[in-house]
Amino acid sequence: MPSSLFDQHRERLEQAVAACRARRHWSPFPEVPSGRIYGETAAEEGRRAFEARLDKPFELDQPSSGERLGSERSPYGFPLGISYPAPDIPAMLRSAKGAMGAWREAGIEGRVGVCMEILQRLNRRSFELAHAVMHTTGQGFMMAFQAGGPHAQDRGLEAVALAYEAMTRIPPRVVWEKPVGKGRTARLEKLYSVVPRGLALVIGCSTFPTWNSYPGLFASLACGNPVIVKPHPRAVLPLAITVETMREVLREQGFSADLVQLAVDSAGAPITTALATRPEIRLIDYTGSGAFGDWLEAHARQAQLFTEKAGVNPVIIDSTDDFAGMTRNLAFSLCLYSGQMCTTPQNLFVPAGGIATDEGRKSFDEVAQGILGAIDGLLSEAERAAEVLGCIQNPDTLERIDRVAAAAGDAVLRASTPLAHPRFEKACLRSPLVVHAESGEEDLYMREWFGPISFLIEADSTLDAIERAARGARERGAITAAVYSTDGEVLAATAAAMLEAGVALSENLTGGIYVNQSAAFSDFHVSGANPAGNATLTDDAFVAPRFRFVQRRRPLAG
Amino acid sequence: MPSSLFDQHRERLEQAVAACRARRHWSPFPEVPSGRIYGETAAEEGRRAFEARLDKPFELDQPSSGERLGSERSPYGFPLGISYPAPDIPAMLRSAKGAMGAWREAGIEGRVGVCMEILQRLNRRSFELAHAVMHTTGQGFMMAFQAGGPHAQDRGLEAVALAYEAMTRIPPRVVWEKPVGKGRTARLEKLYSVVPRGLALVIGCSTFPTWNSYPGLFASLACGNPVIVKPHPRAVLPLAITVETMREVLREQGFSADLVQLAVDSAGAPITTALATRPEIRLIDYTGSGAFGDWLEAHARQAQLFTEKAGVNPVIIDSTDDFAGMTRNLAFSLCLYSGQMCTTPQNLFVPAGGIATDEGRKSFDEVAQGILGAIDGLLSEAERAAEVLGCIQNPDTLERIDRVAAAAGDAVLRASTPLAHPRFEKACLRSPLVVHAESGEEDLYMREWFGPISFLIEADSTLDAIERAARGARERGAITAAVYSTDGEVLAATAAAMLEAGVALSENLTGGIYVNQSAAFSDFHVSGANPAGNATLTDDAFVAPRFRFVQRRRPLAG
Repeated sequence: MPSSLFDQHRERLEQAVAACRARRHWSPFPEVPSGRIYGETAAEEGRRAFEARLDKPFELDQPSSGERLGSERSPYGFPLGISYPAPDIPAMLRSAKGAMGAWREAGIEGRVGVCMEILQRLNRRSFELAHAVMHTTGQGFMMAFQAGGPHAQDRGLEAVALAYEAMTRIPPRVVWEKPVGKGRTARLEKLYSVVPRGLALVIGCSTFPTWNSYPGLFASLACGNPVIVKPHPRAVLPLAITVETMREVLREQGFSADLVQLAVDSAGAPITTALATRPEIRLIDYTGSGAFGDWLEAHARQAQLFTEKAGVNPVIIDSTDDFAGMTRNLAFSLCLYSGQMCTTPQNLFVPAGGIATDEGRKSFDEVAQGILGAIDGLLSEAERAAEVLGCIQNPDTLERIDRVAAAAGDAVLRASTPLAHPRFEKACLRSPLVVHAESGEEDLYMREWFGPISFLIEADSTLDAIERAARGARERGAITAAVYSTDGEVLAATAAAMLEAGVALSENLTGGIYVNQSAAFSDFHVSGANPAGNATLTDDAFVAPRFRFVQRRRPLAG
Repeated sequence: MPSSLFDQHRERLEQAVAACRARRHWSPFPEVPSGRIYGETAAEEGRRAFEARLDKPFELDQPSSGERLGSERSPYGFPLGISYPAPDIPAMLRSAKGAMGAWREAGIEGRVGVCMEILQRLNRRSFELAHAVMHTTGQGFMMAFQAGGPHAQDRGLEAVALAYEAMTRIPPRVVWEKPVGKGRTARLEKLYSVVPRGLALVIGCSTFPTWNSYPGLFASLACGNPVIVKPHPRAVLPLAITVETMREVLREQGFSADLVQLAVDSAGAPITTALATRPEIRLIDYTGSGAFGDWLEAHARQAQLFTEKAGVNPVIIDSTDDFAGMTRNLAFSLCLYSGQMCTTPQNLFVPAGGIATDEGRKSFDEVAQGILGAIDGLLSEAERAAEVLGCIQNPDTLERIDRVAAAAGDAVLRASTPLAHPRFEKACLRSPLVVHAESGEEDLYMREWFGPISFLIEADSTLDAIERAARGARERGAITAAVYSTDGEVLAATAAAMLEAGVALSENLTGGIYVNQSAAFSDFHVSGANPAGNATLTDDAFVAPRFRFVQRRRPLAG
């Protein structure tokens, strides 16, 4: 008799719960794409599994209109040629609703066991997922493997662990005994059941389709809510593979596969607004543009909404005892995935009077030259440049680069130039655009310019830099902030301002940790405390509203 | 050197945290208004303190327009004659915002210690609060003491305990160490701070001004959010005394008293809509009518909103082995505070074919007669009737009674009649109106009729009763449901239907526990899973969104 999935995965689950609390480094999913870890044939099999998807219909046995959709194109320069079943939304919602009762009845351990098994299966498909992520998002292979595979799985597991903990924080049954005077006792048996909130919608983004979707997807499912996954039309495949895996495990365990369904649409005929406002949809997880996030907040009011939008991420450069390390670190942060991360710094504030460094005092221009030089150094080798930059995911980003460059004119410190990819001839690689800005030009830099676009801003002073950086975060949102200073008072003042602005701060990163990075089980991604989003990956507020306790009580003989 | 408030109250706090988890009976605030517990002079001093409030200005040293407001009238038949400072909302918001920084800096233990001390002080004022609650809500003295004093304090403590637990679930500082290959380790120090969401608004109701307000009030304050308390114009005094006590403790501890302010308005010039939509207000706790709750959900979108609205609470009467106990229990539930509880049953479903009982088979009419007889019995003694019924709080309720009685005509099974109060000549006491309804008359009974108005509904069968009761809860909301049956299958079917409808179910209550009652630390009040409200008193989802973790990280030498 095989033990239950829950028992099979119990040890990992308990470790994950402990890790969420301890917030130290922990991960059960190795981030190194090594044959010794994943099996010597895993890399090759993953590549072949991806290639076998190309130019074919992707089969998902779920309610469909019968038509097929799909126009994904690899940013590395070729069409994927994959078509997906077009959704029949009313039928999908009905089917999801119909599946909910048995899923609730499966109980906490039943559901969590299934989620843990799914994560394990997804981990085994990490190479296939890496290629799918690479050729939809344009990430370099290593990043696509790590962020799209094990790190996304970590974020999913984190959500399952927190949901499990939240659901099991009270016992399913107690005997309540209250002395009511004269030696008598009122006795009630009380039963507490976890009741899911309803149907959940997860709206994926085009740049991190798995990493940003897994937390909401797994949290909702673990709490009993069937999930409709609405991928971005440019990045369907990673979520299609995910949904396929989830449906496979659900079916094996005797549940309706329609507990997780994929709702594909096209840029020309989007379905998200109609879907997000359906009365059946009670939970929405959204990652994407601020404009559409604002629309959801205004219109999808029947649902509990968790958003990760965007912001203007600041860096305050006051002083450093490792100028070379600082510029190398910043250059990498600006180049990584061509700035197409919601965590990429955009606004680098440097006092007009220059800064103190281990190499002596540096003027504003010298700081700028240091950063630009580090970018050039990083991109000097074609193979490394291609891996770090990845590709531009969306032609809109190219237009945005051109628009800012044209507006900046002489203020362009470093033009964004095309680079050749060593293997993909048609890949669209671009180096970062860096623009000089006066601190008064807030109209220009106090808004998000998504992509490899950043501003080196001449601040009146460090205090002016802190004030503007914090205000930008408060008013426009920010997901990350960084500061470089050797002065404890400057660090404290920055920390106080960023705390007030509700933005995570990284101090003096000069080595191999970058402000863009956010580690599951330790770092909270997006604070929920400024306009960049209303939720955090992942805290109790992210999981607790996804279910309710409903109770039943009855007298017991005194 | 006196220990901190946190240390002084630590033991009680830890017990409260454990009680929230164990969900067994526990309370540190004695519910018996006894001189042996509260001190032999407490009752008399409380009465005098209340009387000293009458016909005077209530002084609160907070931002005010300089005018005074107040037109409270005791439902026992006299004006209170108390005037309160009219608010200067912009100045109050400014002052609250200005006080937030120091309150955040006080830290979790600092804030929780203050909240614990406030609850202790409020407990000592339970007699004064009892009179204030009695003469604003119209509750009988005993209920006003218990629900307005110790039980409300329990609910406040429950919220503080859960907020404390949520804020301390992760450490304030960790060292994160990640092996990065070749024997090297990346090391970061990470600091996590609790950041409040912003200003909080608590909108009180007229029937349970303290019990329903304390959870949101204390949860928000403990998490660092300054609170504006907006009492119902008919029930200001209990919250004014509460705010006075809170400001006193805050000031003693060196904080700005404006962390808690009272915003009084009048029925003729209400301020709630303007206040609730101010951008500074980030949290709202609301108890009251469904209509205004819906308005808040539609308009106060800048805030996280916690609502307790209303619903149609069903009872399903299928069979019983204690007919006398059942009818006595139901009669008490219908009479208690004249049905002016959000937990009072409204729709009693009885199969048209009658039910099996320990006294033999009873027809529908005999069940009706049993319940009506039990009501008459309960109200036969004037002193007891007055204590159980209390007064009608709002003249609108009298109109509602008349409207339903007129519409029902011959279907009135028991008219609502005036009763004399043994001591208060002008008190407005009314016995319950009970109306017969056909199951098809959903237009009549499938909406909330607040007050002593209930329907005895002739259902086709028990299954028909369960189906209609559950649908009412799903579509119109319900806070409580009850079932009487000796049949395990009926109980199971009812439990399944009520679980699906997200409503708490009480089974076969025939003794001294009533469906209306909800015990802190054990019973969840309102499920949040149907239209009766979107939140529960009190679970993690009620506290976790009131703060955010904001982090700071920096490299440590490897």
